[in-house]
Amino acid sequence: MTWFKNTLTKSLNIKYPIIQAPMASAASIELAAAVSNAGGLGSLGLSYYKFEDILSDYKSLLRKTNHSINLNFFTHKNPKKNDIQAKKYMNEMQKYFSEYNIPIIPNLINTTEPFNSEHLELLLKMNPKVVSFHFGLPNSNYIKSIKQQKILIISTATTVKEAKILEDSGVDAIIAQGFEAGGHRGTFASSYNEGEIGLFSLLPQIVDATSVPIIAAGGITNGRGIAAALMLGAKGVQLGTAFLSCPEATVHPLWKKALSESSEKETRITKAFTGRPARGIVNRLLNDMENKKDIIPDFPTVGSVVKPLAHAAAKQGKNDFLSLWAGQSAPMNRNVTSKKLVELLIKETSSILKLYKNT
Amino acid sequence: MTWFKNTLTKSLNIKYPIIQAPMASAASIELAAAVSNAGGLGSLGLSYYKFEDILSDYKSLLRKTNHSINLNFFTHKNPKKNDIQAKKYMNEMQKYFSEYNIPIIPNLINTTEPFNSEHLELLLKMNPKVVSFHFGLPNSNYIKSIKQQKILIISTATTVKEAKILEDSGVDAIIAQGFEAGGHRGTFASSYNEGEIGLFSLLPQIVDATSVPIIAAGGITNGRGIAAALMLGAKGVQLGTAFLSCPEATVHPLWKKALSESSEKETRITKAFTGRPARGIVNRLLNDMENKKDIIPDFPTVGSVVKPLAHAAAKQGKNDFLSLWAGQSAPMNRNVTSKKLVELLIKETSSILKLYKNT
Repeated sequence: MTWFKNTLTKSLNIKYPIIQAPMASAASIELAAAVSNAGGLGSLGLSYYKFEDILSDYKSLLRKTNHSINLNFFTHKNPKKNDIQAKKYMNEMQKYFSEYNIPIIPNLINTTEPFNSEHLELLLKMNPKVVSFHFGLPNSNYIKSIKQQKILIISTATTVKEAKILEDSGVDAIIAQGFEAGGHRGTFASSYNEGEIGLFSLLPQIVDATSVPIIAAGGITNGRGIAAALMLGAKGVQLGTAFLSCPEATVHPLWKKALSESSEKETRITKAFTGRPARGIVNRLLNDMENKKDIIPDFPTVGSVVKPLAHAAAKQGKNDFLSLWAGQSAPMNRNVTSKKLVELLIKETSSILKLYKNT
Repeated sequence: MTWFKNTLTKSLNIKYPIIQAPMASAASIELAAAVSNAGGLGSLGLSYYKFEDILSDYKSLLRKTNHSINLNFFTHKNPKKNDIQAKKYMNEMQKYFSEYNIPIIPNLINTTEPFNSEHLELLLKMNPKVVSFHFGLPNSNYIKSIKQQKILIISTATTVKEAKILEDSGVDAIIAQGFEAGGHRGTFASSYNEGEIGLFSLLPQIVDATSVPIIAAGGITNGRGIAAALMLGAKGVQLGTAFLSCPEATVHPLWKKALSESSEKETRITKAFTGRPARGIVNRLLNDMENKKDIIPDFPTVGSVVKPLAHAAAKQGKNDFLSLWAGQSAPMNRNVTSKKLVELLIKETSSILKLYKNT
C-alpha cells in the first residue's frame, strides 16, 4: 500500500491527498483544473465572485477537467454597523487618499455576501464533488440539503473546539489550519488569539479529538512537510502559498515579487486589508495598522476602502496597500507549474518516507 | 540502522536524540539525571541559581548519573535603567500589592546575571559534556575557551537569520524553537515578531540554511511529534513541557494543576512575568498586561516585583501571578516518570515510522 491512498482520497475520489487551497484572491480556473488533472483536488474560491459569474466560470472549469473539484465559499457574519469606529477609520485612512490624490474617499461597503440561499441553490445545481466553507459553516438546513445531494463538505478549524463543532455538524473532513498558514484565519468559534496554534500542536490534538479525516494546512510546501503531516496523523494536506508561485495563480506581479523575496521578509497576521485576521508579508499598511486594530471595521467592508489605494500605489510600482498573503514557508516556494509541483510533492514525500523504511 | 542513531547522538554521546529542555524555573537534579540515565540528554538550567550553589548541585547530579549532561545559562543583556517606564509599571502593579496587603513594594532588581567570566571559570572547572545558551551566545572569547576544552555548545534560534549567526559563531548544534514552545522565546537577533514562526516553517528552513545538526523544539510531546521533526530534517528534539508533568520536575502544584487542565485553557506569549516574551497558560496577570507591554521593564527585573505577588496569591490557592509556562501541546502531556516518558517516546516514534515502511 502506498502512503497516498487512504480514506480521504477514496471519498474525494482523487489520486493524491493534496488539496490546492481555494485562495479567493488568487484562484483561477487554470490553477484548479491543473491541480485536479494532476491528481490532487483543485479548488475555486468563489467568495469574491460576482454572483452572476459563478456558473459560467464553473462551466469553463468543467471543460478543463473531469476530475473532482472543490468549490469554496465564505460563511462570515455580515458586518455590524459602527459609525464611531468607521469615522475613526476613515479619518486614519484620509492621509493615504490625499497622498495618492484620490479625491472621493470610498465608503465602507459590504462587497462579499456570506453563503446564502441563492448560493445554495446554485451550488446544488452545479453539484461539485466537494464544497468547502471558510469562517465556519452555513446554517444547518443548508448543510442538510448539501448532504442530501451527497456533495462532500469540508471546513476549517483553528482550535480543537472548532474541530469538534465541525464534526458535530456533519462535515466529511476537517482542515486543521496552523498558525503558519497564509491568508485568512478560519477562526469562527474561538477568539483569534486562541486560534493561533502552530501546526505541530494543533494537528495531533484535532486528530485525537475527532474521527473524520483531518487535512493539515499551514507551512506545508514540499514533501518534507507532507511526510511530517502524515506522522502527526493527517490524511491529507492543503497547500495555498506553495501554489502562488505557479504561473496558473492569478497573482499581482508585485505580490509574486514579494513572494520571491520572502526569505528577507517577515509575514504577520493582520486585519488591515479586509477586517479579518490574515497572514501576509509585512508592507506599509500592515505596519501602519499594527497598533490600530481597534479602529478597523468588520470584514469585508475594509476591502472597499483599501482596494483603490492598492491600485493607485501598484500603478506606481509599490505594494504598500496590497494584501500580500503568504504563509511562513513562502521562502521555500518553487517557481514551477502546478502540475509539476504536484508531481514533485508526491516524489519528495515518497523519498523521505523511504529513508526510514529500515527503521 | 535505527532512526535514533545519527551524528547528533554520536557527538553528544547519548543513546537517543532526545534533549530535556533546561527550563530554569522547573529544573531539578532528579529530572536531568533521570533523562540522562534513560538515554536522552538531561539538562540543568542554572540561570536562576545562586552562584555559590551551582557547583554543589552539579556534584550532586554527577553522583546520580555518569552519562552526558547539559548545563544551561542565559546570555541576555543586562537591563537598561528606564525611570519613567519603571514608575508607570510600579504604579500599575500597586493595586495588586494593596489587594494582597503587601506593605513594602519590592524594587526592580536584577536577580539574574547573564553568563559572565565567573560562570565561564566555573563551567570550565565543571567540564560538562554540553553547555547550552539561551538568548544568544556569550562573547567570542568565552566561546573560544569553551571550545578549546571540547565542551559542546548548543544555542537556540527562532529565525533563519539567528541560526546562521549561531553557526558562524561555531556552535555544535542549533535548537530551532518553534512558536509552539513553552517558556522563554530564545529570540536574540531578530525582533520578537519575526521570531514567532511555527515549527513546520522554521525547522526545514533552518535545516536548509545551515550544516550543523538541528534540534527541533516547540510542540513536541510524543512519538508523532518526533517522527514529524525527523521528516522536516531534525537530528534531534528538545522537549520541555512534556517533562513538566513528570514527578521529577520542580513545578508548583498550581502550575501542575494548570497543565493538567490545559486542554480547556489557552497559552499565550507574554512579557508579564519576567520582561521577556515567554509562552504560558493564560491567567490573571497575563491577561491584565496584554495591552500594557510598553510599560513592562526589561528582563529579568520584572521577576523581583511579580514573585512576591505570586507567593501571596499561591498561598490562597490562586495561580494569578505564577508564570505557568507551557507549550501549545501541553494538553497532550502524560503523567509518567521521566524515565518512562523517554521509553514511550522511543517506542512511539519507532511504531509510527514502521507504519510507512512499505511505502
